[in-house]
Amino acid sequence: MSIVVQKFGGTSVADAAKIKNVANAVIREYNNGKQVVAVVSAMGKTTDGLVKLAGDITEKPCSREMDMLLSTGEQISIALLSMAIQEAGYQSISLLASQIGIFTESIHSKARIVDIKTDKLQKHLNEGKIIIAAGFQGITRDGEITTLGRGGTDTTAVAIAAALKAEKCDIYTDVNAIYTADPRQVPRASRLETVSYSEMLELARVGAKVLHPRSVETAKQFNVPLRLRSSFNLDDPGTLVIGDDKMEIHRPVTGIAADLKQVRIAILRVPDQPGVAARIFSTLANSNISVDMIIQSLEEGNLNNIAFTVHENDLNNAIDVLESVRKDINAGEVVVDRNIAKVSLVGAGMVDRPGIAAGMFEAMAEAGINIKMIATSEIKISCLVDKDHAEEALRSIHTKFELDAKAEVQS
Amino acid sequence: MSIVVQKFGGTSVADAAKIKNVANAVIREYNNGKQVVAVVSAMGKTTDGLVKLAGDITEKPCSREMDMLLSTGEQISIALLSMAIQEAGYQSISLLASQIGIFTESIHSKARIVDIKTDKLQKHLNEGKIIIAAGFQGITRDGEITTLGRGGTDTTAVAIAAALKAEKCDIYTDVNAIYTADPRQVPRASRLETVSYSEMLELARVGAKVLHPRSVETAKQFNVPLRLRSSFNLDDPGTLVIGDDKMEIHRPVTGIAADLKQVRIAILRVPDQPGVAARIFSTLANSNISVDMIIQSLEEGNLNNIAFTVHENDLNNAIDVLESVRKDINAGEVVVDRNIAKVSLVGAGMVDRPGIAAGMFEAMAEAGINIKMIATSEIKISCLVDKDHAEEALRSIHTKFELDAKAEVQS
Repeated sequence: MSIVVQKFGGTSVADAAKIKNVANAVIREYNNGKQVVAVVSAMGKTTDGLVKLAGDITEKPCSREMDMLLSTGEQISIALLSMAIQEAGYQSISLLASQIGIFTESIHSKARIVDIKTDKLQKHLNEGKIIIAAGFQGITRDGEITTLGRGGTDTTAVAIAAALKAEKCDIYTDVNAIYTADPRQVPRASRLETVSYSEMLELARVGAKVLHPRSVETAKQFNVPLRLRSSFNLDDPGTLVIGDDKMEIHRPVTGIAADLKQVRIAILRVPDQPGVAARIFSTLANSNISVDMIIQSLEEGNLNNIAFTVHENDLNNAIDVLESVRKDINAGEVVVDRNIAKVSLVGAGMVDRPGIAAGMFEAMAEAGINIKMIATSEIKISCLVDKDHAEEALRSIHTKFELDAKAEVQS
Repeated sequence: MSIVVQKFGGTSVADAAKIKNVANAVIREYNNGKQVVAVVSAMGKTTDGLVKLAGDITEKPCSREMDMLLSTGEQISIALLSMAIQEAGYQSISLLASQIGIFTESIHSKARIVDIKTDKLQKHLNEGKIIIAAGFQGITRDGEITTLGRGGTDTTAVAIAAALKAEKCDIYTDVNAIYTADPRQVPRASRLETVSYSEMLELARVGAKVLHPRSVETAKQFNVPLRLRSSFNLDDPGTLVIGDDKMEIHRPVTGIAADLKQVRIAILRVPDQPGVAARIFSTLANSNISVDMIIQSLEEGNLNNIAFTVHENDLNNAIDVLESVRKDINAGEVVVDRNIAKVSLVGAGMVDRPGIAAGMFEAMAEAGINIKMIATSEIKISCLVDKDHAEEALRSIHTKFELDAKAEVQS
């Protein structure tokens, strides 16, 4: 009998009525003759409430105790969902990461999964039970509770699907498909029936928030078919995310997205010596700051300007780190630009087709939008523009590449 | 270095300010040179909130999923208390029952502890850490989460104290001592400096709610000195509960209490045949209904009336059970009296002194209170009276046995 893993996020289990709705989605799959593992997040605002409780005690809670605290959120939702399924007359059992054996590194608040035991899962499935598994959490070999950080529950679902060799992993969410752009920003965004792991990964990285890049990476690594679908419209097939090799045609452009949470940092007049760039970026990496869109430009004499973007949450930390590096390497001042948006265009077919980048720049030129910085990869082109030009840029690029749907998306 | 176990109930950790107050009580003991294990309950109304969540999903939640749900309450409070202790500059670690290894029977919602591992506790204590342990919860050998039922956190604390051979177990609560009677009912109730396990057990059983009989039983079994004390007045020594053999004198009367939650059930005209009483009470026991104050009186012919009391929560269940038994044994109708209170007088010295029972009956006669039923044990006399006479009965008995304090207790 084939296994289906389903994932339900916090908004899908926000209250009793929604939990019963999720129970229906689970039971529907079970009645299709599947063995079902449902992976759930904490209910709606639970995590925020727990963070506030900790904030009333201390400004800097230790991450080990935060994981102890936050992991209760999923424990509550799995118990309630299991009750809802039993109330509907089906057999189910809720399981914590510690009970399943979802082993992670010994790092708190953003641990990575290293191993998932399948014997307990398989035993309960073979007994005809629906399994409700806690997302977002793990356990170390020493029995310490960890959490997986951003995108954690998606990652749990995909990793369980990989461990059980599941037929597919359905990610239920509050949108009904992946679109060529965010319909709130681009009303004529069109639905995608299928998208490749690589495309989805780039789309997720550049700001399409429907799937976390980490879960897509895991799905790609273990070749788990992912389906993004709506928890409120169970008949909608959603969007299937599969291996590049399974895509029949490679669209030149799959989608576009804008990331409004980046800030640009520039270090001026950096001496042009070997090892200087390595020094800057390894110091940032050691402080766990992810850097994107690095540009180095030669200025007068032997001095470079080095610019890059970081997430706005990392800005203060990055400035602290850079101030000391700057002095050591004898560079000029550090300049920050907060008024930026990163507009990106993604498509696995772009590599074979010249002119995609040119088309993107033309679309923005026609709309009178100034480009502040450009970076490209094999399947992605990103441009920095002023923050208030982001939506206009998205729409003009979307139209240029004929992605527009015939009618506007119903919200 | 000697070990002290402290227990803090839900009202002591109800909010951030109270949690910080508890942290002070813990640190104070640590600074006295003790190794400290603090055992905590769920914060104030958390459990009620969780029960309500389950109630929105189903009327009859399965007890296994209820334990999964309710055990999050203690998990939240241990994480927060550990943060508060760390915020004050001390090393601490919160531990779940599953992490410590508090093993229980495989029974949900009212499991009994069968074994406590001490290696992890001892390791952290030896590293100089304060341990914050989750009360009320346990784990089965199969890794299932259980809860201990009423008085669970007190029981966890005493059992950990026994396992670690602790110097003492301090039960912090919102009252500052054990009294000869409930000061809300008897304003002239006087404080007890020491009380024996047996006396405390009887006082707890007859309605003195400060310590759960189960924790006192465990303390008695393993000879753990228990101290009941106030979490809001750390200088108050409270009341020490110790072995009968350690009491210098046995007071004829230690205290009195009224239990307003009992109901009386009578089965009329029960045939006087061997095995009939056994049949009735084993059937009740099999349904997990505790029975108190059994009286059998011979009526006309070979027919008995059998009367006893049960907790009001067990009433409906008891009536269901008795209706079928009644038919099988060919007895008359089942009669219920809800308008009763059980007034009890407890004292380990009573066994050597005649006249205690007589004094109790006299006190009630002088107050014009009718006694509906009487039951006695070696160190306890209980009388049923009308519910609205309970307080008057308590006061008259309290005065009769010269228990009155010189001044009224300050509330």
